[in-house]
Amino acid sequence: MAEYATGIGTSTLDSISLLGQDLAGDLIGQVSFGELAYRLATKRQPTAGQLRVFEAVLVSLADHGFTPTAIAARMTYYSAPESLQGAIAAGLLGGGSRFLGVTEDTGKYLNAIAKGLGSTEGWTAEQWDDAAREAITATRSAGGKIPGLGHPVHKNGDPRTPVIMHIAEDSGVKGVHLKLFEAIGRVHPEILGNTLPLNGAGVAGAALADAGLPVDLLRGFALLARTAGLIGHIAEEREHPIGPTLYTHVDRNAVYMPPEAETGTND
Amino acid sequence: MAEYATGIGTSTLDSISLLGQDLAGDLIGQVSFGELAYRLATKRQPTAGQLRVFEAVLVSLADHGFTPTAIAARMTYYSAPESLQGAIAAGLLGGGSRFLGVTEDTGKYLNAIAKGLGSTEGWTAEQWDDAAREAITATRSAGGKIPGLGHPVHKNGDPRTPVIMHIAEDSGVKGVHLKLFEAIGRVHPEILGNTLPLNGAGVAGAALADAGLPVDLLRGFALLARTAGLIGHIAEEREHPIGPTLYTHVDRNAVYMPPEAETGTND
Amino acid sequence: MAEYATGIGTSTLDSISLLGQDLAGDLIGQVSFGELAYRLATKRQPTAGQLRVFEAVLVSLADHGFTPTAIAARMTYYSAPESLQGAIAAGLLGGGSRFLGVTEDTGKYLNAIAKGLGSTEGWTAEQWDDAAREAITATRSAGGKIPGLGHPVHKNGDPRTPVIMHIAEDSGVKGVHLKLFEAIGRVHPEILGNTLPLNGAGVAGAALADAGLPVDLLRGFALLARTAGLIGHIAEEREHPIGPTLYTHVDRNAVYMPPEAETGTND
Amino acid sequence: MAEYATGIGTSTLDSISLLGQDLAGDLIGQVSFGELAYRLATKRQPTAGQLRVFEAVLVSLADHGFTPTAIAARMTYYSAPESLQGAIAAGLLGGGSRFLGVTEDTGKYLNAIAKGLGSTEGWTAEQWDDAAREAITATRSAGGKIPGLGHPVHKNGDPRTPVIMHIAEDSGVKGVHLKLFEAIGRVHPEILGNTLPLNGAGVAGAALADAGLPVDLLRGFALLARTAGLIGHIAEEREHPIGPTLYTHVDRNAVYMPPEAETGTND
Repeated sequence: MAEYATGIGTSTLDSISLLGQDLAGDLIGQVSFGELAYRLATKRQPTAGQLRVFEAVLVSLADHGFTPTAIAARMTYYSAPESLQGAIAAGLLGGGSRFLGVTEDTGKYLNAIAKGLGSTEGWTAEQWDDAAREAITATRSAGGKIPGLGHPVHKNGDPRTPVIMHIAEDSGVKGVHLKLFEAIGRVHPEILGNTLPLNGAGVAGAALADAGLPVDLLRGFALLARTAGLIGHIAEEREHPIGPTLYTHVDRNAVYMPPEAETGTND
Repeated sequence: MAEYATGIGTSTLDSISLLGQDLAGDLIGQVSFGELAYRLATKRQPTAGQLRVFEAVLVSLADHGFTPTAIAARMTYYSAPESLQGAIAAGLLGGGSRFLGVTEDTGKYLNAIAKGLGSTEGWTAEQWDDAAREAITATRSAGGKIPGLGHPVHKNGDPRTPVIMHIAEDSGVKGVHLKLFEAIGRVHPEILGNTLPLNGAGVAGAALADAGLPVDLLRGFALLARTAGLIGHIAEEREHPIGPTLYTHVDRNAVYMPPEAETGTND
Repeated sequence: MAEYATGIGTSTLDSISLLGQDLAGDLIGQVSFGELAYRLATKRQPTAGQLRVFEAVLVSLADHGFTPTAIAARMTYYSAPESLQGAIAAGLLGGGSRFLGVTEDTGKYLNAIAKGLGSTEGWTAEQWDDAAREAITATRSAGGKIPGLGHPVHKNGDPRTPVIMHIAEDSGVKGVHLKLFEAIGRVHPEILGNTLPLNGAGVAGAALADAGLPVDLLRGFALLARTAGLIGHIAEEREHPIGPTLYTHVDRNAVYMPPEAETGTND
Repeated sequence: MAEYATGIGTSTLDSISLLGQDLAGDLIGQVSFGELAYRLATKRQPTAGQLRVFEAVLVSLADHGFTPTAIAARMTYYSAPESLQGAIAAGLLGGGSRFLGVTEDTGKYLNAIAKGLGSTEGWTAEQWDDAAREAITATRSAGGKIPGLGHPVHKNGDPRTPVIMHIAEDSGVKGVHLKLFEAIGRVHPEILGNTLPLNGAGVAGAALADAGLPVDLLRGFALLARTAGLIGHIAEEREHPIGPTLYTHVDRNAVYMPPEAETGTND
């Protein structure tokens, strides 16, 4: 007989259980939405410091203005305003490699390196720098890219990075991922030959990993944060739509270049 | 020249603005994720009471166990595990009329009635009851259904309902929507002939409306809450998958009933 | 014990059945993709005429240039190029009321009227005109809109309309839906006071209904047709992307209008 | 000034152009939907043989019974029946690596090998076998997997494979991809130590590549074919739903295993 195990939720005539607690008695009004999201993903209760970092990172990732994903959500809402879920889903579907993936990529990258370091207890900045140098060099030799470095706008430094670093430190959450990321920030110029900022998406990934979130799910938290941002975009689209203007702009500036007549061949 | 107005976010070389504030200096680490979500949707800062109700409602809506939407997300993750955004989007796409729509339907229903009531300041319970009786009667005459009434499992009362009512009252947020919903709970048996519980999705809609969220976007908050739940389901699916078991179950218990041979006709 | 009946497909060690036929022996290479799509939706074999109309309508609906849905698909592809299914899904999610819904709306509208007409065998154009007048008048009295009328570009007539009408007539498929739609085209000016073209999406809906497709699924065929168009857009986006240009355009022409500082209130 | 080049479609007051042809005069009723889909993806007119293979492959890929993607689409339709586009999108989102990806993976794999072979004109079966041996050996040395080999049900041979091979040969379309795939079928047992069937998804990928479709878009054609299958599943779900049975089955057989109480730690 098929069985489906879950530790998330169940209910009886009189009660609803969530994560082994009574939803009505223990959770509603007792924990923040951020805390519940943390616990749903990890099945652990965060420390106060972990939760503070988690909420801070979600805030940092919620919106980035008119990104391609926000545009996709708005165009979908314009086409099918009766289906809010479709517009939000369309916006999330752009949460892939190019724009939203850096958070998870950075977390995974740092995590893979960290696993090879053994105990780092009591390490000095020099030791972190050595580890970072070795990692960057190995990545570059293999033709790889260091995730979390560089930003198209914030070329002198991403304003989110020091704030998240500070909150993590202040909360006692700063661990191997953030320390390694910081070290990458210090030593990469001598290896790469140019100085790039540690970007906000990257520091978000490092901070989430240090806050105890599973590195294979980091993209999920970027998507959760972005859902709040997309609701904001759709709320705004209802009041002051850009959809018609943007559609008209593309339509008017379309240049038709039809394919040349060509008979089919097998090549 | 096309212009695209937004009040959400923008950035310069050195700073990121969100909702007119400095993201790094004023928001990250200063506001909870729930508060930011509220502000993105409304462009207003919630009172402490509104925020408390908002976070409580999000917690109440985050998960409902193995709903059809959770199953859809898990089956999608099983098919395409490399695309976490696709699994979450698939889960959200079920956020429509039948399972997730009650929150918005209830909020809109109550709001439409409330708009016709004029000033309700100082109303007694009897006055609310009269208004509820009139609304229910009118809805039934028109062949309509009262949203937010009844629950397939919690037939004696939904455990979320009194908790959310209490939090709203305690926070000074209880307003026309919740008062009207309560009155519907009191008077519907005499009109409908049977007693139904005020369900948790319905009270969520009433509470969000009283907390100042736009009634036309209430489905969006159910989707935001559910995103956290879906991340939990996918985290669990990674560790203890039900996908293969469920797929095998359906496959083994499929009964093939092919269409009878039939020639096409124009009818 | 749960059972799941289906008449679509099943397989054994040696064979695959689809719609009661042998996929390898009877279908692959024997029927066009359009025919299979028709049979999957209806579980009936189309007549030659029905199939001709069905394929013609799919061709007519496949693409409409840079629609909002095509833009959404391209922006999603730009953000997450590794997930082709996400880009196509995002494009389909705009297939709702405003842009893609006319086909289904028109088919349903005509079908509802047709059901009330009784036998129309041998009807003259005058009789169809009378039926159309009555329907239009009733719709307008109820404050409704006649679907399938009008086009933002083809103000003098949609070039698809006469072609599809002709194919349906020539194929012996023209039935109550198209005849009624034609009559609406003839008589609406005297009732509405202005002359609007019968648009291509509307005639598509009427023709699909006459070709035996279920009116409640007409949106599905518009989506199927559009899937082919979206693959074309993504193929083009790979070679000559518009994503970066469009993103830059919106970004450069964004005008930041932050919300005014406001303290939260309970109103 | 931003410009958006496209070769797909455009329209004027009187006409609609698609791929440089007149939609109404040259395409509707003149070309099958399959042919239009081919041309949208490639901007080339297929030969009669290429089109025959393309339509045959689409037919072969349209449905595979109660796959996880069909289940996801049905559960989504059950939750949100008002949004057909959402149910189809949810079904397509499972079109990723595990179930639908084989077609593209096989096409790309064979294409990468083919590019390294130089001219294969007049090659004997022995020469193809040598090339296949070399490729399989290299893939295995690198720890890789040969796509398109093996099937969970059709262990003695996939019934689609010989039919598609025959159609391609008969149509003059059989080229390097199918020849190499055939050779892999012949020689892999001597290298891998066991005999696996060439599966239908794999031969579909090889045949599409030989028919001139771009290998980087092969997943798109599997998605197009599957859209027709998903419409069939939703049509069936409307008449004979499995959604409620499946939901009840999972709900009744859920086993609640809540997480153990655990205090948060930084590890």
